[in-house]
Amino acid sequence: MSPHNGYINPLLTDQYEFTMACSYFCTGRHGDKAVFDLFFRKNPFGGEYTVLAGVSEALRFIEKYHLTENQIDYLCSIMPRADMKFKKWLADLDCSQVKIYVMREGSVVFPREPVMRVEGPLALCQLLETTLLNLLGYPSLVATNAARMRLAAGKNKRIVEFGARRAQGPDGAVSAARYSFLGGADGTSNLMAGYAFDIPVSGTQAHSFIQSFSGLDELTERNIDDADGKTHDLVEAVLKYRDEMGYGNTNDGELASFIAYAQTFPESLLTLVDTYDTLKSGVPNFLCVAVALTKMGYAPVGIRLDSGDLAYLSKVARTMINDAGAKYGLDFGNIKIVASNEINETTLWSLKHQGHEIDIFGIGTHLVTCQAQPSLGCVYKLVEINDQPRIKLSQEPEKMTIPGRKDVYRLIGKDGHPLADILMQPDEEKPQAGHKILCYHPYQEAKRTYITPTKVQPMLELAWDGRLTGEIRDLKVCRDYAAEQIASLRNDHIRLLNPTPYKISLSEKLYEFMHHLWRREAPVGELS
Amino acid sequence: MSPHNGYINPLLTDQYEFTMACSYFCTGRHGDKAVFDLFFRKNPFGGEYTVLAGVSEALRFIEKYHLTENQIDYLCSIMPRADMKFKKWLADLDCSQVKIYVMREGSVVFPREPVMRVEGPLALCQLLETTLLNLLGYPSLVATNAARMRLAAGKNKRIVEFGARRAQGPDGAVSAARYSFLGGADGTSNLMAGYAFDIPVSGTQAHSFIQSFSGLDELTERNIDDADGKTHDLVEAVLKYRDEMGYGNTNDGELASFIAYAQTFPESLLTLVDTYDTLKSGVPNFLCVAVALTKMGYAPVGIRLDSGDLAYLSKVARTMINDAGAKYGLDFGNIKIVASNEINETTLWSLKHQGHEIDIFGIGTHLVTCQAQPSLGCVYKLVEINDQPRIKLSQEPEKMTIPGRKDVYRLIGKDGHPLADILMQPDEEKPQAGHKILCYHPYQEAKRTYITPTKVQPMLELAWDGRLTGEIRDLKVCRDYAAEQIASLRNDHIRLLNPTPYKISLSEKLYEFMHHLWRREAPVGELS
Repeated sequence: MSPHNGYINPLLTDQYEFTMACSYFCTGRHGDKAVFDLFFRKNPFGGEYTVLAGVSEALRFIEKYHLTENQIDYLCSIMPRADMKFKKWLADLDCSQVKIYVMREGSVVFPREPVMRVEGPLALCQLLETTLLNLLGYPSLVATNAARMRLAAGKNKRIVEFGARRAQGPDGAVSAARYSFLGGADGTSNLMAGYAFDIPVSGTQAHSFIQSFSGLDELTERNIDDADGKTHDLVEAVLKYRDEMGYGNTNDGELASFIAYAQTFPESLLTLVDTYDTLKSGVPNFLCVAVALTKMGYAPVGIRLDSGDLAYLSKVARTMINDAGAKYGLDFGNIKIVASNEINETTLWSLKHQGHEIDIFGIGTHLVTCQAQPSLGCVYKLVEINDQPRIKLSQEPEKMTIPGRKDVYRLIGKDGHPLADILMQPDEEKPQAGHKILCYHPYQEAKRTYITPTKVQPMLELAWDGRLTGEIRDLKVCRDYAAEQIASLRNDHIRLLNPTPYKISLSEKLYEFMHHLWRREAPVGELS
Repeated sequence: MSPHNGYINPLLTDQYEFTMACSYFCTGRHGDKAVFDLFFRKNPFGGEYTVLAGVSEALRFIEKYHLTENQIDYLCSIMPRADMKFKKWLADLDCSQVKIYVMREGSVVFPREPVMRVEGPLALCQLLETTLLNLLGYPSLVATNAARMRLAAGKNKRIVEFGARRAQGPDGAVSAARYSFLGGADGTSNLMAGYAFDIPVSGTQAHSFIQSFSGLDELTERNIDDADGKTHDLVEAVLKYRDEMGYGNTNDGELASFIAYAQTFPESLLTLVDTYDTLKSGVPNFLCVAVALTKMGYAPVGIRLDSGDLAYLSKVARTMINDAGAKYGLDFGNIKIVASNEINETTLWSLKHQGHEIDIFGIGTHLVTCQAQPSLGCVYKLVEINDQPRIKLSQEPEKMTIPGRKDVYRLIGKDGHPLADILMQPDEEKPQAGHKILCYHPYQEAKRTYITPTKVQPMLELAWDGRLTGEIRDLKVCRDYAAEQIASLRNDHIRLLNPTPYKISLSEKLYEFMHHLWRREAPVGELS
């Protein structure tokens, strides 16, 4: 299957990938057996977990990897030294010689462990770097953001992604909707995302709709058919309830807009109530129409608050809704309060502490742009070539790579919580449930722990072996998996304040191997 | 012409645009004459100017506006009340009844003035909202970011966009490259952007290329042809210079990688020098190869620093380069130093203050994600319907809309600097060069200024009148215009610290009109 976005093709990469490939080719090294790890160094948003996303799109890219003739001509125009042989090599390129091991989409993943391992011919694996980083980075970031907001909002609340207008480009919008949904959002306002990925969509009206009416005389139609098909004068009914409830001073244009909307969507009335004055006009106008609709056999859906003190307004609005229900003997218990307006993770926590009556949060800018941290910072590092390990040294130990091909196992405790992930060399005996295993901190030699897992989960799946080795998982399947993964985490790993880092450890053999290479490669200083 | 990205189509919008359109249609209001303003409320990055971008893509979207049958079926599936008449209306939709006035792409623009005015049938203009906001918001943000970084880097420095891997999705990457270039970047590493938009591309090698070599014995080829076609042993030559320069301890794998790269690209050698140790290994290895190449008639391009203290390292590296040139009587004055590694606007200013020897900055994450402020926050507001003005009130005066159809003129002073923009009603006499005009602050009645412009520039162009009224401007034309526009600004508007806000003013007539409506619409409070 092709990637969903036409920009996803072999040219969606940095020029240096191709100049390096050209040099590998010219020096006869392009077919060397290479292993690259894709990982990140730090969880985003000050947290201690990340939700992996973008895997299915990355696999689609790998499956269709092919350069067109025009693209090859372009490449040769920017690399005049590229000869006919290299051109032919480019034309024949595909991923039939590549193996991709990757963690399952929706997995909770952690810094420094390879979330993807790419094996194959050196030059080709190099070419894949930028595109794979692009395809996994933002999706994982926004899925994590949504997951964090879902936790902050609380279990019985809904979150809807509202950010299409503020996203970083058209794909930023569509990807935001897709991967917010994966991370735990309940839906989106973005129709393109709904259409392409079968994500629940929602949305009702903007201020402009309400402002487009200036009075009741602008209504061309006064009537509505009730749920049984009988026609009533809706305007008359609404004005009667307005009178009875004592809401004399509401804005007539706003009321007209609510009536018009109710005539079009009697089953799904949800009105925006802050255009003129939330409590003096918007909520009263909604209630007049809601009572009329309910009496005619319909169930109004609710209101949306888009400014002001959302905790306070939601509480007062709820009381007004309940009072109106009580006055007319109607069950308004299912009426929803939606809130939007620059909501972020901190707002969600703060609202929860204050107490509020909001059922659904519409979240735009902060969700889609990941304002708190707009990039995950994934990297793709060479760890082995022709079966020889490679290590990237750095003054900062945290930036050093863990050399060689590695497998990753999640060690799960008896209560079902993951205890640690362990990285080991492929020829080591795999960890086994019920057997004690010694886990090393990657950089601090005295930090070691014995772990006896109740269950052991291999994390890297062979998803591509010259062809897809299984199905590309459906978005909803990944979403369910992400929810399950997050629910399995110990609470101290996911709390907002000072969460406990999850342990990413090395087997004794891998620890010794890495530190041996480190000592071998690092230059010895000299003082005189 | 079609938009460049397949996601740009009428479904790239919020659901509420279609539910509102449906309700407008069902209540017979869809054809009402509407005017919407697109604007933003605050310049990004704490600055006082914004570079407008995304206009050409928006016009392509308008030109091709059409819903497919599948898309219409999808819309009807989420709006079960939509009937056959509405379905037919959707199928016939195009922008032949729409007028779009827009400021020229690359213009310097300011808060609260309409950068785009959309006129036409209410329902259709409503549908365009989200897509237009998406198409202008991020492009303008990233163009502004690039323009600011260009100013911070200084006139004789080059800036290259390096952020494809960290961008928000594939389109985030391509848009970032495209609009960074518009805002003043000199090129990109992103081949897809280079290919699609003819932007200069650059890039040479990554750490993995260098790490893929562990010693000189891995070189399959020792020779190189000099610029006259004569063959030399490059390895021998390089080792001779290494010996002569006393660089005994450089890393052999790194040296091998530089030699291999030089063999492939003798005309454009630019090496990454921080894999092992910038000053002890990377720069010395580059110089050995650079001396050899130069002696063979080639001109090596330079080095890239990717970690450490960039100011210090660039200065020491420059001295080493000059010393090597002097030792061998070679002109190394054109050798470039490229710096990358988490560079942002603040880093650029700080480097400038410290003094440095960097020629080219490679900027990734901070440029493409606009980390300092990842969204511009454009809005699209109804200002007139059926020739009647609309005003959106708000507790915060800054959030109030300026009602009615407005033209915008830039008043330019005798030294060529813009003095202020003035918004006026279309039936007013236009401002004229040499004639004094009274300019009102939009909200503070005592703040008025007489301005006698030397030149008056109408800012809103009719770009679409049922069809394109002119050519869609080429990216390079927009880029040149942006550079010219930024250069015309008074220095105090563009300085980093406490820049002076540029005046956006109203004509007396518009001021009176707006405040009259404000008093008429705002509810009078009551105390008892």
